Amino acid sequence: MPSNRGVVYMGPGRVEVQSIPYPKMEAPDGRKIEHGVILKVIVSNICGSDQHMVRGRTTAPTGLVLGHEITGEVVELGSDVEFLKKGDLVSIPFNVACGRCRNCREQQTGLCLTVNPARPGGAYGYVDMGGWQGGQAEYVLVPYADFNALKFPDRDTAMEKILDLTMLSDILPTGFHGAITAGVGVGSIVYVAGAGPVGLAAAASCQILGAAAVLIGDINAERLAHAQNVGFIPIDLTKSEDVGELIEAAIRVPEVDCSIDCVGFEAHGQGRDAGQEAPATVLNTLMKITRAGGAIGIPGLYVTDDPGAKDPAAREGSLSMRFGLGWSKSLRFSTGQTPVLRYNRQLMYAILAGRLPIAKTVNATVISLDEAPKGYQDFDRGAPRKFVIDPHRTLS
Amino acid sequence: MPSNRGVVYMGPGRVEVQSIPYPKMEAPDGRKIEHGVILKVIVSNICGSDQHMVRGRTTAPTGLVLGHEITGEVVELGSDVEFLKKGDLVSIPFNVACGRCRNCREQQTGLCLTVNPARPGGAYGYVDMGGWQGGQAEYVLVPYADFNALKFPDRDTAMEKILDLTMLSDILPTGFHGAITAGVGVGSIVYVAGAGPVGLAAAASCQILGAAAVLIGDINAERLAHAQNVGFIPIDLTKSEDVGELIEAAIRVPEVDCSIDCVGFEAHGQGRDAGQEAPATVLNTLMKITRAGGAIGIPGLYVTDDPGAKDPAAREGSLSMRFGLGWSKSLRFSTGQTPVLRYNRQLMYAILAGRLPIAKTVNATVISLDEAPKGYQDFDRGAPRKFVIDPHRTLS
Amino acid sequence: MPSNRGVVYMGPGRVEVQSIPYPKMEAPDGRKIEHGVILKVIVSNICGSDQHMVRGRTTAPTGLVLGHEITGEVVELGSDVEFLKKGDLVSIPFNVACGRCRNCREQQTGLCLTVNPARPGGAYGYVDMGGWQGGQAEYVLVPYADFNALKFPDRDTAMEKILDLTMLSDILPTGFHGAITAGVGVGSIVYVAGAGPVGLAAAASCQILGAAAVLIGDINAERLAHAQNVGFIPIDLTKSEDVGELIEAAIRVPEVDCSIDCVGFEAHGQGRDAGQEAPATVLNTLMKITRAGGAIGIPGLYVTDDPGAKDPAAREGSLSMRFGLGWSKSLRFSTGQTPVLRYNRQLMYAILAGRLPIAKTVNATVISLDEAPKGYQDFDRGAPRKFVIDPHRTLS
Amino acid sequence: MPSNRGVVYMGPGRVEVQSIPYPKMEAPDGRKIEHGVILKVIVSNICGSDQHMVRGRTTAPTGLVLGHEITGEVVELGSDVEFLKKGDLVSIPFNVACGRCRNCREQQTGLCLTVNPARPGGAYGYVDMGGWQGGQAEYVLVPYADFNALKFPDRDTAMEKILDLTMLSDILPTGFHGAITAGVGVGSIVYVAGAGPVGLAAAASCQILGAAAVLIGDINAERLAHAQNVGFIPIDLTKSEDVGELIEAAIRVPEVDCSIDCVGFEAHGQGRDAGQEAPATVLNTLMKITRAGGAIGIPGLYVTDDPGAKDPAAREGSLSMRFGLGWSKSLRFSTGQTPVLRYNRQLMYAILAGRLPIAKTVNATVISLDEAPKGYQDFDRGAPRKFVIDPHRTLS
Repeated sequence: MPSNRGVVYMGPGRVEVQSIPYPKMEAPDGRKIEHGVILKVIVSNICGSDQHMVRGRTTAPTGLVLGHEITGEVVELGSDVEFLKKGDLVSIPFNVACGRCRNCREQQTGLCLTVNPARPGGAYGYVDMGGWQGGQAEYVLVPYADFNALKFPDRDTAMEKILDLTMLSDILPTGFHGAITAGVGVGSIVYVAGAGPVGLAAAASCQILGAAAVLIGDINAERLAHAQNVGFIPIDLTKSEDVGELIEAAIRVPEVDCSIDCVGFEAHGQGRDAGQEAPATVLNTLMKITRAGGAIGIPGLYVTDDPGAKDPAAREGSLSMRFGLGWSKSLRFSTGQTPVLRYNRQLMYAILAGRLPIAKTVNATVISLDEAPKGYQDFDRGAPRKFVIDPHRTLS
Repeated sequence: MPSNRGVVYMGPGRVEVQSIPYPKMEAPDGRKIEHGVILKVIVSNICGSDQHMVRGRTTAPTGLVLGHEITGEVVELGSDVEFLKKGDLVSIPFNVACGRCRNCREQQTGLCLTVNPARPGGAYGYVDMGGWQGGQAEYVLVPYADFNALKFPDRDTAMEKILDLTMLSDILPTGFHGAITAGVGVGSIVYVAGAGPVGLAAAASCQILGAAAVLIGDINAERLAHAQNVGFIPIDLTKSEDVGELIEAAIRVPEVDCSIDCVGFEAHGQGRDAGQEAPATVLNTLMKITRAGGAIGIPGLYVTDDPGAKDPAAREGSLSMRFGLGWSKSLRFSTGQTPVLRYNRQLMYAILAGRLPIAKTVNATVISLDEAPKGYQDFDRGAPRKFVIDPHRTLS
Repeated sequence: MPSNRGVVYMGPGRVEVQSIPYPKMEAPDGRKIEHGVILKVIVSNICGSDQHMVRGRTTAPTGLVLGHEITGEVVELGSDVEFLKKGDLVSIPFNVACGRCRNCREQQTGLCLTVNPARPGGAYGYVDMGGWQGGQAEYVLVPYADFNALKFPDRDTAMEKILDLTMLSDILPTGFHGAITAGVGVGSIVYVAGAGPVGLAAAASCQILGAAAVLIGDINAERLAHAQNVGFIPIDLTKSEDVGELIEAAIRVPEVDCSIDCVGFEAHGQGRDAGQEAPATVLNTLMKITRAGGAIGIPGLYVTDDPGAKDPAAREGSLSMRFGLGWSKSLRFSTGQTPVLRYNRQLMYAILAGRLPIAKTVNATVISLDEAPKGYQDFDRGAPRKFVIDPHRTLS
Repeated sequence: MPSNRGVVYMGPGRVEVQSIPYPKMEAPDGRKIEHGVILKVIVSNICGSDQHMVRGRTTAPTGLVLGHEITGEVVELGSDVEFLKKGDLVSIPFNVACGRCRNCREQQTGLCLTVNPARPGGAYGYVDMGGWQGGQAEYVLVPYADFNALKFPDRDTAMEKILDLTMLSDILPTGFHGAITAGVGVGSIVYVAGAGPVGLAAAASCQILGAAAVLIGDINAERLAHAQNVGFIPIDLTKSEDVGELIEAAIRVPEVDCSIDCVGFEAHGQGRDAGQEAPATVLNTLMKITRAGGAIGIPGLYVTDDPGAKDPAAREGSLSMRFGLGWSKSLRFSTGQTPVLRYNRQLMYAILAGRLPIAKTVNATVISLDEAPKGYQDFDRGAPRKFVIDPHRTLS
């Protein structure tokens, strides 16, 4: 049995690379399983939602192996894996899903009813998501592998575009779900809140869906500059509290057809209040600037409890929303994690055809496993990069 | 030119029947129009949203002629009305709509861009909805009549079911929109908040859509008893603050597939707090009891400003919502007024076929024009009735 | 190991009850599988599509154990079955599906890519559908059981409604798919071609979906009488070749909103030609009577090759269709087998709530295993019954 | 009153430019109308469906003024036109539609129930489509102008892209409807039958919708070369009768996700039979090459009667279709004319944003009114061009 190493959460602000056990064909509760595969991890990315844990905003226990964005090679198969074989290169959705429950049958794999005893929906390497080991590691177990794994059609072609394909495990389908639920289509004018990797992935999704204009708002100058470089219209939220005014300056009208919240509950104020936490800011802004009859996609994370919030209401996940404004405009709001499996195959084909240069859009940056702690720090400081861990140095 | 009389808002708590001008072929701003018809009103109902004005919760001016639920007979036609003729019996959607703007073309008639200079969406006899005269009167003008009017196929058959058909102008499509946007379908388990006429119409809509079980929650005992009589499962909200527990007692599971808010911003607390205003109560309850992956339809009115609210945040239309809870369950929220024209024809066919006994469901009660002020009072006290004004005593 | 008996195809016009092997945990190609369960069959119905084989219209080999409509009790479990347990009462979709391929993930379980090497889609006891043993037997193997089986929530309640619930394995979802793809909704006027069990199931589906009127056309007087008894409008196709005229006589207009072909390629002529085979008759009729902009759902079977056809073109599955007529009316056509799993849970809830009395609608008639050959004969003669085989006399 | 000139059909194979009456505010039956505008035509294109008439394949009467692809400037307004004004530059959908009937209300403007007494659906300058004068002229009447006209937001910007925007009146929305009804989306592999302007517009639509690969099949070498030049994968149908084989040679698999028939009833055989009329060839091919579960969009025209057909069945619009093949693959078929108004606004925004260079894709070629007869000839010979008539020499 080979050794294994992974990125481990050691307490607020601290991650370390440590030796960890090589995966067994077992569920987190110790039951033996027949449907799993063990992957040699080819690439695994650092995600903004990992940061929520690392910043100490959650109840994540120390010792947790992080990482839910996994692409790898099959090295071992359970006895009930029929359609994968050793050597297959696969993308793994961050949602752990059984493929057998009511929700999985209905393509709601983000709400699988069986992989997490606590509540619908599981994930690798994440607090309260079922206890599955994370993939920022050399090896990882993937359960229900026939169902969960998306096999790349051709290994060589896949390796050429591996920095694009690695985004299929989470941020590209996350951004795409935001765009789809916001009703983005051909000719749409869209505003994306947040110029981090998920915001950029949402913007790229709008682009491939035929949007006429994609605006991205943020308070981070470096991220805005990058967004502009890769083809989007930057909206600098430090310039005014009135986002409608900023939008009008950019496109002559103060409202958009659709909007996407890629920020979530750790939102900050705008204009004069830039820098202050203000968890309902993005939602209230989007209600203001979205045209009547439009929709708001909300892939950005909102939590049921936020022990670290300043506002006492926010601590129990309550936000002060101008809901009456949204109602008067007949807006629709779609929330929650993306069901990756609903989208990843078609996005893969678009990538392989050269139509979705997502690695460039999010500025994919390869690092070694040992560089992961530094990657976490840089990302937390707002570097306009998406860090891709290459634990076996396959890409170098 | 015949005389005209109508129900007029005279200040908080007061409506009177008065002489009013006979309609002219003019828009509210005085422009002559070619596309209108004048209707002899056959029936016009009192609506819960009229009550918001009459209770003084809005900025409605005194002198406003009320009434947006109109069924009538064409008695005069503008020069550009091509498809209606004198004597036609028609149902008029409460939304005034031009049929020519971007939103009307897309079946968003509740957000017509041209009939209300203040904001998208117009209505008859309503504050801030464009200044169109109300229909609780003997005669009323209907603009863009070819587009707006739904002609009944046969006059005699229509008169036999007129108490059902009168619900097509507002509450039936309103309830139906709630059900559709909540994703109600064959086999659904649904919870409807509010046992007033809109709640009952939503419940009847769930029924015709094939729901397996329809629960209705309220704090009004008389309304709950009526809901039970017409075939729904009553949930008495005075019994507990924990609605999930009440639901579990009724159907063995504590959650539903879909839910519909037919209450809106004038919501009251439950359990111990029954009777207290608590504008976010219904929304927070529905997030709790709706299953992960479900949807919430929100036909109940939420306002941009509520000068009469006790809570200062609510005064500007802000609600304290446990949005993180909804997000963790991937819920979808649909808001706003129904576009009546999208639904009324099909609902009419269902009524004419005897499949939607909505008059009985909402307890339609005919009154004369002069009885309207008393009807407003009785309805405000929570009588389990839907008052139908018969200004020409056509039905007696 | 218990003994086993089943209904076996012995050549054109002949079925016999014979001893057959007790199922093994093996795929048809002999591979050992971990994901199967063995069911004690509670009920298994005779289907019109079994008749295609028994009449000798297909290349079905003698020795084939028939039956794809299966409801049973779990008596044995493979090592990778996690969510079922012994004693569970389950409904099995006729489509064998792996739950792991691209099509199954997208709810296209009728086109599973892995269970049938010949082409997409598998079934139990059916020619060219993958070689899975049929369920008109005492015991049967169900592969990928966690995915395929729909467990009834409560055994006692299920046994009370077992004659309704048995229709979930095929004809109810088949008729429902026809109705859904025909665009049936609240207030629809629908024409169903064929008053056999699938036609009646389609009609019942229209009813639960809110249709205003459901017409059923056939040439069999007994079936038409039954259709009328259970609430539908019979159209006697022996009366005229002009179906529009017959429809107009029934509902005053000569066209319908939606139509459903529950007959398929073994269609017969109408009016003077009643009784003659005329494989495109139904399709051409539906194009004529469906309103412009409408849709046609086609659950009735059309085959790629029909060696028994009289018309040489029909022998290779070619039909002479007035497609230009359909085009000029912008019609939509939806074909193919239903993906049962997409619909069966919601239909089950509607049945358990007492809203879908499908057993009565199709005239479910219980017979023993030994009576199966007689059931085949009676059904072939057009008896207005749906035969339900009870191999273990559980219901008596 | 200014003079007027237009392109007139003079019998099979003959069109002439003649003096014609200046439009009056009248319907074809002579009724005075209030809802029309008179346009000075800026550009009007020659369409493949004009060719059906000019080739004498229809019952078009001589003297018919041709042209249904109209972009123009408002020069006169009826008394019930409220939202347009003189000088507005507008695109006119080829479908004449009232905006007031059941179908128009439901966005089925291609099936308007009132503008054509003969059957649902009207058009300018077309046989059996209601008798509205064509737009290959200096001036033309547009009825129901507020509803039908799409106003360009800015005149100068519009004039810069006028050769793209002129495609909004027909072929771009026609191709787009084909793509939408074929289910084209992000990552789709699509086959388009026909490399004429509609085929190219469908291909461009697939592109903006995010398709991964777009193949176009034709037998015309020049058109195939052009298709390749503008970015699509050409399939030369003269090379083999087996289109699957040709597709496999191009993309390694013999089938596609979606397919679009942009040819219609004047289809010709392939391979050895290239050049022979074979009206069901395209449909039968598409059933063969479209993957199970896919859909076929059919914007190509199929007629109810084809007096010029060689095959007697085809003369009454009957085609010999291998429908059983389509059924076994659960294919969906969508037919009919596009409802332009459902798509043209969003396509306009995509053009104005520079994302849809449709003029280049279809090789738009400007000609004068007097050059129209020659344009008809060149187009009929299969020139890879889309001819745009500029009757007032506005563009030169």
